[in-house]
Amino acid sequence: MHFPFPADKIINRLKETLQDSQDMSDYIDYLLNKPGKMLRSRLVHLSANLYPSQESLVIDVAVAIELIHLASLVHDDIIDNSNLRRGQESINSKWNNKVAVLLGDYLFAAAFNIINRQGLPAVMETVTETIKIMCIGEIQQLYLTNRLDITRTAYLEKIYRKTACLFASSCQVGGLISSMPQRQIGIIQNYGLHLGNAYQIIDDVLDFVSHPGLLGKPAGNDLLEGNINLPVIIALEDPIYGPELKPLLQDQITISMNLKKIIRILTESYALDMAIGEARKYLNQARQMLQQLPSGEARDDLFTLSDYLLNNYLQAGISSDYQKNIPESKVWM
Amino acid sequence: MHFPFPADKIINRLKETLQDSQDMSDYIDYLLNKPGKMLRSRLVHLSANLYPSQESLVIDVAVAIELIHLASLVHDDIIDNSNLRRGQESINSKWNNKVAVLLGDYLFAAAFNIINRQGLPAVMETVTETIKIMCIGEIQQLYLTNRLDITRTAYLEKIYRKTACLFASSCQVGGLISSMPQRQIGIIQNYGLHLGNAYQIIDDVLDFVSHPGLLGKPAGNDLLEGNINLPVIIALEDPIYGPELKPLLQDQITISMNLKKIIRILTESYALDMAIGEARKYLNQARQMLQQLPSGEARDDLFTLSDYLLNNYLQAGISSDYQKNIPESKVWM
Repeated sequence: MHFPFPADKIINRLKETLQDSQDMSDYIDYLLNKPGKMLRSRLVHLSANLYPSQESLVIDVAVAIELIHLASLVHDDIIDNSNLRRGQESINSKWNNKVAVLLGDYLFAAAFNIINRQGLPAVMETVTETIKIMCIGEIQQLYLTNRLDITRTAYLEKIYRKTACLFASSCQVGGLISSMPQRQIGIIQNYGLHLGNAYQIIDDVLDFVSHPGLLGKPAGNDLLEGNINLPVIIALEDPIYGPELKPLLQDQITISMNLKKIIRILTESYALDMAIGEARKYLNQARQMLQQLPSGEARDDLFTLSDYLLNNYLQAGISSDYQKNIPESKVWM
Repeated sequence: MHFPFPADKIINRLKETLQDSQDMSDYIDYLLNKPGKMLRSRLVHLSANLYPSQESLVIDVAVAIELIHLASLVHDDIIDNSNLRRGQESINSKWNNKVAVLLGDYLFAAAFNIINRQGLPAVMETVTETIKIMCIGEIQQLYLTNRLDITRTAYLEKIYRKTACLFASSCQVGGLISSMPQRQIGIIQNYGLHLGNAYQIIDDVLDFVSHPGLLGKPAGNDLLEGNINLPVIIALEDPIYGPELKPLLQDQITISMNLKKIIRILTESYALDMAIGEARKYLNQARQMLQQLPSGEARDDLFTLSDYLLNNYLQAGISSDYQKNIPESKVWM
């Protein structure tokens, strides 16, 4: 990456905006122990730097987006009953659901407060609509649990609401706070959308093949939670492997008992490969968007980011266990 | 009341703003089955009508405040593990915590979206800060659970964060969206603050003496949840009744076993009366604020509202069971 990402400035500003409450600070410090990849605030930062922009404003909006993402993670862990997040205990597990509900609400309110104080109604519109979409998506997901008949279209809609929508908004608000022309904002937003789709698909693949350290959750966790993701959808479509896989997915017990066999089927049927092929397709679409934006360091870094997702994040994520068992014909990268 | 409160318009507008999601509408319709007293949106409406204001704007802000209140109730019921709200099953009980977390987040985002679309940064500032204060208050309450040494000052701070703060903000935003002068906005905000204190104290009294139908929860529920409220604080201060009461409050089991005796002590020690005396004091302070505001129907109604809380809400709330056992010397109203 050429363009220095001011991670420390963002983290410090984030802590600064939340320091009005001694009572919240333990939880917030705990969350910030593991700040994650900060992809969404990176997107804000790089998108805003495609055109002239004011650094302090960019930092504040990056903080707001990071807060919204953190709030949604804290609430998601209640919803999914997750005990692990980023390799450490989740807030609901280390404390309880009460703390997690309140901390999430507080972080949301703090994010809106920052955006409002900067006088950014267009950013506020985007962000509030995005949160509504994310909530609706999660509600829909409750009805999609264990539904083996989920279509690819429904899956794409699901990952749009879950991930790509906030990726797209992060890019969009980056554009909005710079002197980027309106037409270009639509383009950078589409970059975020495609990148978000790719990211979620890669994440869904890694759920089956990663070592628990990377995602901070055990392998097959999504499936155990009843989330039918792209690799499974693809394998179910296969005329040979589909009928073998389907009975194993009958319920949480059969899934849990047959997890190794399920992962073997997803590998041998090339379903994981084909899912990665889909991710690669979205990454290419994201890159095509970039070609319509002004060249320079920020654009180069947005390109590198898409590369990083495929080559580093995915590759680093694949466990050696899995690599040992990978069929010889398979070369992903 | 002289000034017609457009409850139907507010409810309809509320439904209209939320109808972008079919998936949420079941839950929202269910919530709106029991709209409650709509006190906070009444405060917005009346405060805004002390000076010239535009009706559609007032309705939208009343809707936003109602949404924030609803969101906080839905999340509170997760936090308190409550099964009942307004006499019907709570969202977390009828569905589950997942739905309740997401519905609350959605309602918050929808509220901010409305305020933003009306272009009201000062209202947004007030409302986001209020939510932060409410969250901090609830986090603090987790540490105050079962603390018999809670002071009156700590109690007042607790009810400020829990209730009075949003009452004050509702009045303040009503002022902000009308042509009310700045100095008067401070006064109507103080009216809301005193009214909110009185309301919460009355609510805390009713927790001990009401029939379950009114509050939609069983008698003594707050105490069973570990909330030490004003009547208990007053009774504990009593040199005779205090030492009798203290051992009964040792833990949830002793409280649950001795609830009738506890309520008898709160009655005989005049702790409930004295708590109502405190509420009356705050209502008087609220009324004094009104005298500094322009006379007219809106002001008359704000006066009536304070009267209603004491004479109707409190009186209607007291169960006949309790009335039978009330010492003869006691006349509250």
